[in-house]
Amino acid sequence: MKNRIYRGEPPQNQPKGPAIILVHTQMGENIGMAARAMLNCGLTDLRLVAPRDGWPSEIAQRASSGALAVIDQAKLYDTLADAVADCTFVVATTSRTRDMVKPVLTPDTAAAAILTADQTAQKPVSALVFGAERTGLENDDLTLCDALLNIPLNPEYMSLNIAQAVLLTSYTWYQKMLVATDAAVPDQLAVDDKDIATKQETEYLLQHMQDALDESGFFTAENLRPTVLRNLRNTFQRMRLSRQETHTFHGIIKSLRGKEWKKSS
Amino acid sequence: MKNRIYRGEPPQNQPKGPAIILVHTQMGENIGMAARAMLNCGLTDLRLVAPRDGWPSEIAQRASSGALAVIDQAKLYDTLADAVADCTFVVATTSRTRDMVKPVLTPDTAAAAILTADQTAQKPVSALVFGAERTGLENDDLTLCDALLNIPLNPEYMSLNIAQAVLLTSYTWYQKMLVATDAAVPDQLAVDDKDIATKQETEYLLQHMQDALDESGFFTAENLRPTVLRNLRNTFQRMRLSRQETHTFHGIIKSLRGKEWKKSS
Repeated sequence: MKNRIYRGEPPQNQPKGPAIILVHTQMGENIGMAARAMLNCGLTDLRLVAPRDGWPSEIAQRASSGALAVIDQAKLYDTLADAVADCTFVVATTSRTRDMVKPVLTPDTAAAAILTADQTAQKPVSALVFGAERTGLENDDLTLCDALLNIPLNPEYMSLNIAQAVLLTSYTWYQKMLVATDAAVPDQLAVDDKDIATKQETEYLLQHMQDALDESGFFTAENLRPTVLRNLRNTFQRMRLSRQETHTFHGIIKSLRGKEWKKSS
Repeated sequence: MKNRIYRGEPPQNQPKGPAIILVHTQMGENIGMAARAMLNCGLTDLRLVAPRDGWPSEIAQRASSGALAVIDQAKLYDTLADAVADCTFVVATTSRTRDMVKPVLTPDTAAAAILTADQTAQKPVSALVFGAERTGLENDDLTLCDALLNIPLNPEYMSLNIAQAVLLTSYTWYQKMLVATDAAVPDQLAVDDKDIATKQETEYLLQHMQDALDESGFFTAENLRPTVLRNLRNTFQRMRLSRQETHTFHGIIKSLRGKEWKKSS
């Protein structure tokens, strides 16, 4: 994956998406990497609740790989209650099972819930909340949230740092947003069809090959000839040859035979 | 997100999932972080093509956060061709637009395609391939692959390191595997894969054709030979030949030449 580093900008014409709230984060590097993850997904509203090493942080800046559009505008709060004061829908990530009666979402269902909440609220501000490195979120923090978020991972090994959790949840939101807003999602199979061969051109190629094979004695068992030819046809149809490629194959057959093909009417 | 660190194990009763192939990776830390990302998603088949700083790597071990079940069993190869020799379906991640006629997948559609390919092939080995830090994958590497993968991100800021790209693609596969093993797949990949040829079998066919073309004087301009061969390679990769079909093509070439192929070394 190529690594392009430059001062990042949020994309145009995109729903604002959730704020990312980091509570009592210890390492500036994690804040920087989280900012980088956010901006990759077009998110810019970073909120920090009492980061251990203070703010601003040069370490965070350096770790952000140029996501300064996020780092420079990060807002600082004393408590999570302050940070979510303007929020209309808040989801708290947690890896532990809690004895709280709250909906437990996955990144996927959380993304859907956020998109819906952001469409329906009058002044929507959604947020995803992430706790400190070792301890996660306090139970009192969780009471401020509408839902919990648990990332389904290998039950025998779950080891995500904060920035990775931010990346997975932000990315899942971004993909769902692209689909929901019908944005420019890459076509599933964006094969470059500019120069695709017509069926007739493909047919000429198949006739050329058939003539060549007939002449060279390829079909030793005449009764199998139709089946073999049909399979060959399927194989070439599957290739979706470009016009240029049909020329190449004509050239190959001609070269291997050592002679030109004369199409039989 | 709580950070649990211990010697990781792959989960029980899970489809094996894709191998992760890292080509010419420069930093051991990225390999370690990629291993960590993999094991979180239950993936354990890590393959390294000529990592810059050699292997094994203490830096990689330390960066893996205890994903030693992956690091310790990583396999080392000289070339990507060697690394994919036993593979039946290979997807190459790339951030650049290439002028190659190959399907372009997202992590989502790639996950679906891998799940289908793994269900249908007789001895399925799928793989996701990631290039070096700055330069990505070479065009020659891409010719070995069935499809390209592009991660949709903020067009104004795309900055993923290798481990993050591995995390997003592995995670997307894992979620899709959890939710549905019969996910819809792009038509073009829905070939009957029961008897799909391995990369090595496809490679033999390409060598046979290359030898035949060299002998028959197909390449009139020596300087164009590499390009023409690369295009041919791409064409055949796109076909996703069955084993039976490679036999048919060997037979065709032999018949047109009028002689057997003797593989050079």
